[in-house]
Order: sequence, then structure tokens, then C-alpha cells
Amino acid sequence: MPCILAQTASSFAGSWIATGDLFGSPFYFRMELTQEGEKLTGKYAGANVEGTVAGSSAHLLATAQNGTTFEATATIANGVVKGTVLEKDSDDKEHPIPYSFTAAPVPARPSGPPRRHEFTPTVYYRQYSAANKPVLTVNPGDTIHTTTVDAGGNDAQGVKRSRGGNPETGPFYIESAMPGDTLVVHLVHLRLNRDYAGSDDSVVESGLNSSLAVTMKDTGKSVRWHLDLAKGVATPENPSEHLRNYTVPLRPMLGCVATAPDPSQAPPPTGDSGGFGGNMDFNEVGEGATLYLSVFNPGALLYIGDGHAAQGDGELNGNALETSMDVEFSVDVIPGKRPPGRRMETPTHVISMGLEGSLDEAFRSATSNMAQWLAADYDLTPSEVAQVLGTAAEYKVSEVADRNSGIVLKISKERLGALTSQRE
Amino acid sequence: MPCILAQTASSFAGSWIATGDLFGSPFYFRMELTQEGEKLTGKYAGANVEGTVAGSSAHLLATAQNGTTFEATATIANGVVKGTVLEKDSDDKEHPIPYSFTAAPVPARPSGPPRRHEFTPTVYYRQYSAANKPVLTVNPGDTIHTTTVDAGGNDAQGVKRSRGGNPETGPFYIESAMPGDTLVVHLVHLRLNRDYAGSDDSVVESGLNSSLAVTMKDTGKSVRWHLDLAKGVATPENPSEHLRNYTVPLRPMLGCVATAPDPSQAPPPTGDSGGFGGNMDFNEVGEGATLYLSVFNPGALLYIGDGHAAQGDGELNGNALETSMDVEFSVDVIPGKRPPGRRMETPTHVISMGLEGSLDEAFRSATSNMAQWLAADYDLTPSEVAQVLGTAAEYKVSEVADRNSGIVLKISKERLGALTSQRE
Amino acid sequence: MPCILAQTASSFAGSWIATGDLFGSPFYFRMELTQEGEKLTGKYAGANVEGTVAGSSAHLLATAQNGTTFEATATIANGVVKGTVLEKDSDDKEHPIPYSFTAAPVPARPSGPPRRHEFTPTVYYRQYSAANKPVLTVNPGDTIHTTTVDAGGNDAQGVKRSRGGNPETGPFYIESAMPGDTLVVHLVHLRLNRDYAGSDDSVVESGLNSSLAVTMKDTGKSVRWHLDLAKGVATPENPSEHLRNYTVPLRPMLGCVATAPDPSQAPPPTGDSGGFGGNMDFNEVGEGATLYLSVFNPGALLYIGDGHAAQGDGELNGNALETSMDVEFSVDVIPGKRPPGRRMETPTHVISMGLEGSLDEAFRSATSNMAQWLAADYDLTPSEVAQVLGTAAEYKVSEVADRNSGIVLKISKERLGALTSQRE
Amino acid sequence: MPCILAQTASSFAGSWIATGDLFGSPFYFRMELTQEGEKLTGKYAGANVEGTVAGSSAHLLATAQNGTTFEATATIANGVVKGTVLEKDSDDKEHPIPYSFTAAPVPARPSGPPRRHEFTPTVYYRQYSAANKPVLTVNPGDTIHTTTVDAGGNDAQGVKRSRGGNPETGPFYIESAMPGDTLVVHLVHLRLNRDYAGSDDSVVESGLNSSLAVTMKDTGKSVRWHLDLAKGVATPENPSEHLRNYTVPLRPMLGCVATAPDPSQAPPPTGDSGGFGGNMDFNEVGEGATLYLSVFNPGALLYIGDGHAAQGDGELNGNALETSMDVEFSVDVIPGKRPPGRRMETPTHVISMGLEGSLDEAFRSATSNMAQWLAADYDLTPSEVAQVLGTAAEYKVSEVADRNSGIVLKISKERLGALTSQRE
Repeated sequence: MPCILAQTASSFAGSWIATGDLFGSPFYFRMELTQEGEKLTGKYAGANVEGTVAGSSAHLLATAQNGTTFEATATIANGVVKGTVLEKDSDDKEHPIPYSFTAAPVPARPSGPPRRHEFTPTVYYRQYSAANKPVLTVNPGDTIHTTTVDAGGNDAQGVKRSRGGNPETGPFYIESAMPGDTLVVHLVHLRLNRDYAGSDDSVVESGLNSSLAVTMKDTGKSVRWHLDLAKGVATPENPSEHLRNYTVPLRPMLGCVATAPDPSQAPPPTGDSGGFGGNMDFNEVGEGATLYLSVFNPGALLYIGDGHAAQGDGELNGNALETSMDVEFSVDVIPGKRPPGRRMETPTHVISMGLEGSLDEAFRSATSNMAQWLAADYDLTPSEVAQVLGTAAEYKVSEVADRNSGIVLKISKERLGALTSQRE
Repeated sequence: MPCILAQTASSFAGSWIATGDLFGSPFYFRMELTQEGEKLTGKYAGANVEGTVAGSSAHLLATAQNGTTFEATATIANGVVKGTVLEKDSDDKEHPIPYSFTAAPVPARPSGPPRRHEFTPTVYYRQYSAANKPVLTVNPGDTIHTTTVDAGGNDAQGVKRSRGGNPETGPFYIESAMPGDTLVVHLVHLRLNRDYAGSDDSVVESGLNSSLAVTMKDTGKSVRWHLDLAKGVATPENPSEHLRNYTVPLRPMLGCVATAPDPSQAPPPTGDSGGFGGNMDFNEVGEGATLYLSVFNPGALLYIGDGHAAQGDGELNGNALETSMDVEFSVDVIPGKRPPGRRMETPTHVISMGLEGSLDEAFRSATSNMAQWLAADYDLTPSEVAQVLGTAAEYKVSEVADRNSGIVLKISKERLGALTSQRE
Repeated sequence: MPCILAQTASSFAGSWIATGDLFGSPFYFRMELTQEGEKLTGKYAGANVEGTVAGSSAHLLATAQNGTTFEATATIANGVVKGTVLEKDSDDKEHPIPYSFTAAPVPARPSGPPRRHEFTPTVYYRQYSAANKPVLTVNPGDTIHTTTVDAGGNDAQGVKRSRGGNPETGPFYIESAMPGDTLVVHLVHLRLNRDYAGSDDSVVESGLNSSLAVTMKDTGKSVRWHLDLAKGVATPENPSEHLRNYTVPLRPMLGCVATAPDPSQAPPPTGDSGGFGGNMDFNEVGEGATLYLSVFNPGALLYIGDGHAAQGDGELNGNALETSMDVEFSVDVIPGKRPPGRRMETPTHVISMGLEGSLDEAFRSATSNMAQWLAADYDLTPSEVAQVLGTAAEYKVSEVADRNSGIVLKISKERLGALTSQRE
Repeated sequence: MPCILAQTASSFAGSWIATGDLFGSPFYFRMELTQEGEKLTGKYAGANVEGTVAGSSAHLLATAQNGTTFEATATIANGVVKGTVLEKDSDDKEHPIPYSFTAAPVPARPSGPPRRHEFTPTVYYRQYSAANKPVLTVNPGDTIHTTTVDAGGNDAQGVKRSRGGNPETGPFYIESAMPGDTLVVHLVHLRLNRDYAGSDDSVVESGLNSSLAVTMKDTGKSVRWHLDLAKGVATPENPSEHLRNYTVPLRPMLGCVATAPDPSQAPPPTGDSGGFGGNMDFNEVGEGATLYLSVFNPGALLYIGDGHAAQGDGELNGNALETSMDVEFSVDVIPGKRPPGRRMETPTHVISMGLEGSLDEAFRSATSNMAQWLAADYDLTPSEVAQVLGTAAEYKVSEVADRNSGIVLKISKERLGALTSQRE
């Protein structure tokens, strides 16, 4: 965890969040600077700094491991650093890239008791974008009570409020969350708020071998499900003969939870997923679950949406039982560290989530993510990581309905509780 | 289900199991014949028969859907049919393939009360071969109590009894089981019979992305686990620092259950898997499980082996907790139908097992297998199959440690119980 | 091919391109209407129309195959139809979706001789978006001469003109190109315009098994290549010992050629690919190649960029020899039909391009795309398609460096020339 | 390359090939021993040896990197060493594995001029087995002229000589080829010897997405091709309408070239592939090609078969144009080193062949194999390997018709010729 120095308004020493400007779009990086006399050392965007201070001005030369150099001239005024930089690729010194930046101290976590916010959405976004204006600003520790429309954009009254494709509620700005942090989202309540859900009767491409493709060739119609909230079950509204008595237990979940991704990249559609979370369609993202997502932008910019009343593993029909939802969640921030991918926790398990172009790659991604988790949080050696994974791994398919296929790796907390040097 | 006719010793009418002989190796097929006057109709290896009978001789011409023809001359004596055949490919009539066959009536299920057999193995096989002599012959309904050595060939006393690579106990010959049938294997008891298991501390290729490959590059040593049968847990014998208190619940399972595959193909090694079952390494193949395997040879020729004291999903270390086992199982036969792949049942679920060259293909295979199961046994239409799978599918990774990767699809019996026209 | 009726300014009969408006974003569909007396029949967005006309007003009810209905009230004035619609899902009649549309006649191909346009870009886009304003409008048959910056945004003088990530030249608006058409792009000239290219010395994740991952763990630096345009070869600028004499033939190609995709979806980043083309990174997209891309927006909105001086199959380093380019290309439109995926043609081959989340799926996609091409353009039956593919297929890996992996299927024109009923 | 010492009939010093006996089946390993006074050092199956000699007896303790130990007592007589061994796993010293071995000096390459052998096969094998008796023994440098039957077992006269499934000619025993060596097979002549070939009109599972599966659902019949040896083309014997003029150039190739694999493993069927080669179905394994295959058994035990008159990449129909063949090939041995996978060479390219459960894994395998080749034979550093692969890689799909899918990586010899420190 980075050491947050007491920063004074006129010293370069301390931890800074810098906002760079390259061809009009922002990008973020951190500076951790230490001053001894006129000498500056530390890190500039991960590169090693050698610099000198002269009054309120400084000159920095930072060199990254791959040989890229950053030469910066900076001034400090009122606790804000402004600089201009020449970035030079190790193999192309003749074509430096110029940019400017502004840096402010890494913010402290706001103090004060947690609050509960009521939020009624009026706009729904279809891209996880850092450019969408936050709809509400909250503190770490706060709780938000709000609603989501279904994947097709219909609200609790069945009124279409947006085009389809997982329109999202948010983004919520979480104070003090900065690029490089982890956003913690805990789902306190996840409640159904209408009596029907929409789905389909086909099987997605990733579930079809040639034999099943021929069997399924004439399917593809919409199926509406009745949600009996009192009994806690779903049934097809117009069941065909053999499904007359068929019921599915209601198990509300959110298909989408995301932070806004790196603003230097084009914002992804809300049906996509990545390091920022997104449309993960995992049926354990329900009441009581806690998600750990990387922060790429100031405020994190949290989006939620795509409620499912119930979903089989794989989300084989392309749609689950899609419905609107009443959601209450709390947020928190773990400063200065970032998970290597999507992670979550339920009352019984820690879970890493692999989402890649094939199940085989998703399996590797979930395994590698969990291995890093065990090494970082439980001090395990590679050999110990292998022994725990070999004996305790539980792998499920989360979904195959979207562009990424998902495999989750669950480890029971009973196993982890016996690891002897868990960090305090 | 084929109609088992009362066959007389001198009539061609009835259901026959034929053994063909092509270049010295046997192959099996069925004939279902009906006689009206001198006319014979029915099926010859699935092809439509037109034939004539003259006393104890018959002449048959059978035509398959793909145009292949079979021209046979046959005689019957003492209830046995002998024939010579010319098989002609639709596109190559000039090069017919000659062979001979002998056919006996499809056997009736033996009568009498079920028996319990004690069997002590003295030989262990490393191929699922139809050429290995059966070690014991039993009736459908019988129970066998026996033992298995561990994957390395070591028995309950730790004595090496075979080369490694999943040496198997068996093959057991089950009376009346014939090619085209289903063998049912119910695991009555699965008990550990020694106090240690062997494993490893590495991660298999299918679990490694480039980052984890670098992390794991120096692992690869053997790890011995102590099995505390009284407490029901396993612990590393020489635990490293952070695993000093680490325990894993014992959950005995069989890595291998197989029938002998098609004798016209080369017999697979016991580390392989296929339509015949084999090394499936699924940690729910434990006490109380029932497997449904295709029969390809008279007597089915059942093999079991590769006991695991416990195994995480995926069998990430390449080995699970490999140990010897005390096994009691019963067998039964479902005549005249064969599953499209590996299936099983536990007290709570029906399960189809996909085992293919990648997880993506295994996912499709498990899905297609279950879809066929639901259509055949529950009369579901394609649309209904999709709705049940979409809402009730539970997908787990069984293993990624062997040549085939495995995904299983589980459907809770609670869901299936509500399907309204399940076949009686 | 749709019949383009002679449309009068006051009749609903004819072929229309309609622009719908749903929550502020446009979407496009076609109407093909025939009028007999007061009766209207034909197609509305593919659905079967029954309608009635009363003067300049009409009432339409259209029913799609999946049961969705569209009920529209429309008026015509000055050759433009305006309408309001209620769309009802077959299984959810209670929640209709209201929208409005404006329709104009499907435009005729502009007449007049082809022109050649000089275009100097001043802005470069990093999303294939229908919302970017066209930089130039041209007619089918016209030729455009322009330049592209390299993948990092640097121009022929090595000046950074944009952030990196495949900044594109365009979009170009092609008159009469309408959603549902095919855009034809022929690369007349593709010439290098500077003497260096940038690349890397690592291998991308998709090329690494665990052994190669360990070998490559310390690579990852930039490599600059000198482009000797006179000799037609590239050499590393600062070659290490064994590459002192190493040369690669220059073979200029474009990594990106794209139309703007469906405007109802979030615009993809320029490093992505899809049905619209995009970042395909196939080293035969060079001088003399012709691409066939689907049109999703009026004017097609063509983007080009990401020039490579040379690229090995797979683009294993993540970057090829990235450089700026001098490009001349002509455009054309095939009205009323759209390929099922990306296709192209070279002087010797027709080529279908599969780009999916894994090579296995890309292989299937390329195969299916070519099968549809052979069936549609050469009248082949499924059996004939299989025979041609089985004997003439040439499969190459195009790339594994981006989110989609690519396989191309090439069929020699020598083989196709012998097909006897090629459409005239 | 191991140093082949001049071994005397009574000294343990030298290079030995040992044949171990474990439960009745042989296994092979090497010993490289050096004697100084009474001290023995060197390698025993790769493990470091400490030993002492007393007259014609010796006692060895060898320790492998993973901690496994081998304790051997050996005697020498008439130039042959006999020993008994206890092998102990590092983590299980209580259960040592006893076995015996016999070792002979690593044989020298036979001298004398190369010979040409005429061989007429009378038996065809359907497993790549070390247990099949060699049909002919030849020296390195010799040439063999023989024939192969087609994949279905039919010879040049169309007479069925074996069951189908790639029956093989061989095995040929090559003098002095020992486990750990490389067998070199050069295809001098590959000539068609009959006027027809058999194939099919369907597309294999790996080529079918759901859309193509539905299109192809009614295909699956045999197709016979006429081979016009004079004109060098194949044509369908009974072409359907659009294939009346369709021709394919004849391009004879061998689908199978293999050594016998490790005898401690179950022998694979001849339709399979692995480190030993096997059914690779790559259409450049034709006249002029040279294959490099690992030797696992004394004499290498070479098998060839499965001739194709022509084959599209992928072998999409499951069968290529299957036919009998007239084959002339020479053999050679590279002692003491073994490729990490299948490799070959044509007049223009060096080629590594990946054959795995999916195209994605085959791609990685081919890439890693070639990287090792470039590092070992051209002294390239990892960075240099990456630069060469990135600029010179040519990837083709070899086949998707068998259990393994294949991708080959070709590097032009023109590129390699410029590498400056190629080993002499």
C-alpha cells in the first residue's frame, strides 16, 4: 500500500494523482515523490525519478524498465502541480511525444458517518464510459438504494425507458476512489419489483454442436415468465404441454456491475466485459455478494444493470429471466492496489472470474487471477498455491452467451481459514 | 426399445446379435428380422432388409440410408445363423468387401436372485481392451466387492503391483449385456483402505496462462498426503509453512469407470476417455453415484480404477490425491438403447459429461448429450429443452489434466420432477 | 436483389430506406411496398405487410416470422413518408414500443464519369462510429488518394498526430450506399512514405504455451526497423548479433478497413473487428486486393488505417512493422445484398475471413462464410460445396494479436473457373 | 551431442543404452559414465551419478533434479552391463520400486555404402506399436521402395487387404537408431499407382458452426474421384451438375509417417498423432519433403501409410482423396538429440507442426517448437526468436479431421539464410 505522506501545499514530496492531456482526452497516472534537499526521487507513472527542485519549480527525468524516458518540467502552486513532458520511446528518441499534466494530492478518505442515498434514475447508459456525467456522488461506506431497468430497457411498470442492450443505472461517483484503487461493491438487497420476465427458447452458438444445431434450428421465439414473488418461483406464462408444472426458484442477480474503464480507450458497450467488470452474467452476483473492481477514473464511476430473476449456468438462451430490479448496495475503496481481474466474495467463498474469448482461456484467466490472490493475500509460495488449487478448486461456467465466455473459480472460506500466515 | 421376439431354434425371425469377422478381428451388429411366408423384412445392422427364406437357408439384401448394400446368404442350425456377406459402398460397387458372420439370439436377462461377489484382483490392465480375458462373470443385478490400486499401481499396502498410468481392476463380464445396450454401474461403497495418497505441486498446461507459467516454472515435485480416515480429512505429510493447518475433506471417488470400446478400433490407454467412459476424473463419481455407459462388446467388459481420496475440480496438479480403494458396486443392463455419451446420476442430479479436446467443445458435447436425454426420456420438444436448460443448467469443470478436458452438465431432479409427461 | 421501382412522389409503392428514431438514436430498415387499389402489400423491415391506403395516408400491419408485429400509420408528402409505429413482441402484447420513422426512396446510383479525389486528413478517429462526420463524399466508381498515420498516430514525418490505437483516416461517405448493401473497396496503390517502422520483440499471449512463456519472460522492448524503399526490404535499425544480415521483404498492407457498424450498437474501438471489417491484420490486404464489406449506415462511412510495411502471419509481436502509408483506393456499391461476414478477393483467390474469440471458432466462421458464398454465387448444392471445400481449401492464420483471432479461407480462382453454372 | 566414447568390453565408462524391465514391459534409458580410479560419475537416465567400481562390479547412486533416487548394483561381462535397481520417489522413500536392466554400448553408425531395398508388404498394422515385429532392417542412408494401401485398406488393384483406419506399411528397423535420437525420413518419390480415390461429401464437426451444420445436415455420402495420372488431375467420377468440369491438381502426399512411441505407454491407433508423428494429414508431406521424428525404441520402427492423391487444407471431408501409393524414401539418424515435436523441411521451408486438441493449442505448440528450433540451431536469443517469428511466420491449418487439430508454422529458408551465426 502506498505511503500517503502528509503533503504540504508547496512541496513536491508526496503522493499525487496526475491527469495528463494527450490530443484532448485525459489519462491518469501516479507520482510518489520524496525530496531530500534539492533532490527528488521516487516514481513517475511507475518509472524511476531523478530530479531537482529549485523553489516552486522542478525538473524530473524518469526512466521506465523498458527504457522509455519522461522528461518533465513542473511548478507547484496552491498544492497543485502543473507540468509539461516529453516522452521518448527507448528505440525512437527522435520522435518524442509532448503532453502536459496537472497533479493533485491523492485524496484522503472522506470522514463522517456513512449515509444512505435514495436515487431514482432518469437516464440509462449503454456504454461504460468515463465521459458520462455522474448521476450521484457518494462517500466510501455509503449505501445507495435505486432501481434498474431490464436488459431491454423496460422498467418496473413494463414501460420502455431506453433502447435495449443492458441499459445501466449510474454512473455513481465515489469520493476518493482514484485510478489504481479497488472499488468494493456490496449488494445489500436485490429485490424483484414486477411480476414478469422476458426470455427466449433457443440455445446460443457456444452451446451448439452440429447435432444440437440441427435440433434447435426452428427455435428462437420469445418466452415470457411469470414471477410469483410470494412463492419465490418463476413459471412460463404460456407453458407448452410438458412444462405445465415446471417451476424455477427465483434467485435475483445483476448481470452487470462495472467501473468506467481506462478513458484513453474507446468505451465498451454495456453488453461487454473486461478488467472493469461489466456484463459478467454470473448467477452468484446476488444479495450478499461483494465485488472487487479496478478503478481507472477518479470517482470510479460505478454502473449497475441487467437484473435477472433467475439464470441457469451459461445463460444458454442468450437471455436469462430478464427483469427490472430494486437494488441496495454499499461501496468502499481499497486505496492503492488493484486486482488483476474481476474478483468477488460470497458468505462462503472467494471467487475469481475469468472472461475471455473461449472457455479454455477463461479457465486460465480465472486460475491465474486466484493464484495471484492467494500469493498476495495469504503469502503462499507457488508450490503452496498449486496444492491449495489442486485440492480446493471449484470451477463453474458462468456464461457463454456474450462475446466473452466466463469461468469462475471458487475457493471455500473453510479451506482458506486454515492457511496459517494470512496477512493481518 | 427393440421387441424381443420369442425365437425358435429354426426360424430366422427374431432379434439376433451377430459377430462378424473381418481380417481376423470381430465386430458386432444386430439383426431384427420378421418372416411372413417366405419373405424376410426388418433390419440388418440398421439397413432395411428384403429377403427370402427357403427352408434353413435365406438370402438377404439390405440397403443402408447412405446407399451401402449388404448381400448375405445365411443358414440356420440349432438356433445359430451363419452367413457370408458382400458389402458394397454406394460409390464403389466394383470393390465389394467379403466377410462372414455368426449370429445368436439376443440373450434374455438371466433369472435368479442377485448375488454378491468377492473379487481379489491379481492382474491390472493398462488398456481398455476387449481382448483382455474377463476376470469374473456376473449377472445383471449382482454386486461385486473388490479393490483398486492407485494410479501409480500401488496397492493398499503401498506395494507396486503394476506399472503406473491408471492400472485397472477388471474386466468384469456382465451376462446378457450386448452391443447396443447400456451398462448401469451403481457405486454402493467407496472406501479408503490406506493412510496416504500421492500428488504433485505443479499446475497442468491447461491451467497456465503466460503469467502463471512463469510463476510456476520451478514447481513439479511430488507431495504426499496423510489420510486421516477417522477424522475424514487429508493433510500434507510434510506441510510447508503456510499449509501447516491446511486440511481437505476426504471425498473418495473413482477416476476411471469404463466398458471395453468398439473392438474394431485400437484399444485406448487407461488414461484416455471416450464414449465408453474411461478416465473421466470427475469428483462426483463417488459413493451413491450411478453411471450409464454404452456397451460395445458382449458382456460389456467393465473396468474400474484410479481412486482419488479427494480432488479439486479440474485436477489441476495432474494428479489428485491418488490412493488405493475398497469398492463395492452393482451392475445392471438396459437392453437395446445406448446413450450418446457418458451420463450419470447422483441422489440429487442427472449429469451429462462432455470430454473433448477443449473445454469449449466439452461444453457443447455435455449440452447436446443432456438435450438428447431430455428429449428421449421426458418427451420434451426442442423449445422445451432450451427452456429447461436455460433455467436449470449447472455446469462444472470436471478436469483439464488429461488429453480430453471435461465439462459436466447437471440438472437437479427437483426441476425434472415437475416435467409433466415423463415416460412411465 | 430488390426490384427498384420507379417511385412517384405521391405513392407508397416502391423501395424505401427508413430511418427510425428510438430514444434519440437512429436505426435503419427497408420497406418494399406494392399497391393494388387501396391495398398495400410487401415487406416492412422483413415482416409481411397488409395495409390500406387512403389518399396520402396509409395504415400498415406487418407481422414478422417470430410473431413480432408492427402497426404503423404513415403519410406521404413530397416523396417522403413519415410514420408512427407500435412494435409488439409476440409474447408481450401489453408493452408495445412506440417509435417514429422517416423514409426516402432507395437512392439510384449517381451517374457521371468516375472521379479521382485528393484528400489530406486533419483528424483521425479511434472508433468506427456512425456519429463521426464524413470527411469527404464520393460516388461509387470514384478513386480516393490519401494517407494514413501509423498505429501509434505518427505521420510520414514521424510527427504524432493522434493518440495511438489505430487512428483512422475517414470516414468517407459513398453516395447511394445504403444499409443492406455491400461496399466494395479496391486497393489501387499502397505505398510506403517514410523510412522506418516500429515494432516489438515479444510474443503475444495466444502464441505462448508454458514453455515459451518462460523463455520469453524478459522480452518486451520496442524495435525500430529501417525501411529501404529502393531495395524493397526492412532491416532492424540496431540489429543484435545474429540479425546483422537479417532482412524482410517489404509487403505493404492495411491492418484496418471498415464501414461504420450498426448505429444502435456502441461504436467499437479501432483495434476491434466485426461484421463491418475493422482491424483484420491480414497480410494480403495489400495493393490489388478488393474487400467486400457490409453497409449499415447511409453512405457506408468507410475508414482505413493501421498500415504495415510487412507482417508475418499471426502478427506475433502484437505490432507488425507499423508505419504511415500513401493509399489510393476506389469504391463501389453492390445494392441490396450483404455478405455474411468479411470477404475479399485478390488477383488469384477469393477469400473469406473468420474473426472470432478463438482460432477454432474463426475456422468455423471462415468456412461457413465461404460455403454461403459458393452456394449464393455459384449455385452449388451443399454436397458440391463440401466437395469443393474439401479439395480446394487453403487456410491461413491471419492474426492472433487482437481480441479476435483470425483464420482466412482462400479458394483459388483456377478451381472456381471450372464450376459450370456460375451466375452470369 | 553426447560424446561417444571408445568403449572397452570390460569398463563401465562410456555411453550405454539400457533396457529396463518393469512388470514385463521394456523401457529404455541412457547412461553416460566416466571412470576415474574406482570412482564413477556421469548420468543415469538424466540423474547425476556417484558410484564406485570394484572389478567387474559397480554400485551407483543417482539423484534426479526432482529428488527421485536410483540405487543400482551392476556387473559387466562381455561388454554388457546387467543391473538391479531400487527407484525411490523423493516423497515416498518407504515404497521403492525394484527393477532390473541390461545395457549395451550406444551403437555406432553402420559403415558401408547405402543400399536400395525393394519391399512388398504382406501385413498392415493399425497401431503404432513397438510390439509389432519389424518387416525389414536397413541402415541409415539406405533407401526403401515399397507401397501403401489406402486409408480403407485397399491396394493398387482395389483389393481390400486390411480393415480400414489407416493401415500402415512397416515397421522398418533402422540400425543404430536408439531412444533419444532423431529419425530423418526423406520422401524421394511419391507416385500414384491406381486411377481412383475415395472421399466423402460432408464437412467434419470442427468445420461446422450452427448455420453450416443445418446446411450440411443431409450430406454424408461417399464420392469416388477419377485420377488422371497422365494429365495430373482428379475429377469426380459421377459429378453433379455444377462439378461437371471441376478438376483438382494431383498432389500426392502421405497422411501418416511415424516412429513407434514410448513402449511403456499403450500403442496409439494409426489414426492418432503425437510426438512420434502419426496421422498428421498435412498436404506438404509430399515428394521432396524431409521429416524429423523422435526415436523412442531401438531401430526407431518406422511406419508409413494413408496416401492422399490430393487434399485441401483442413481435410474438411474427413477423408481426402484416399488412394494407394508407390513410395520411395531414404532414412537417416541424428544421434543423441530429439526434437520437441514434429518437424519437417521442404526445398523452400523449415516447418514445425502443432497437433493438439484445439487449433488454439496447436498454434501455440507449433510456435514453441519453432522457437526452440531457432534457438538451438541458429543460436538466437529469445528477443531474436520473437523478431524472426514476427516477420517471417507463415501459418497454415493442416487438418481438423482427426482427434488432434493441426497448425503448421513455416519459415522460408530465404529468411534463415541471412541469420549470421548459424551453427556449422
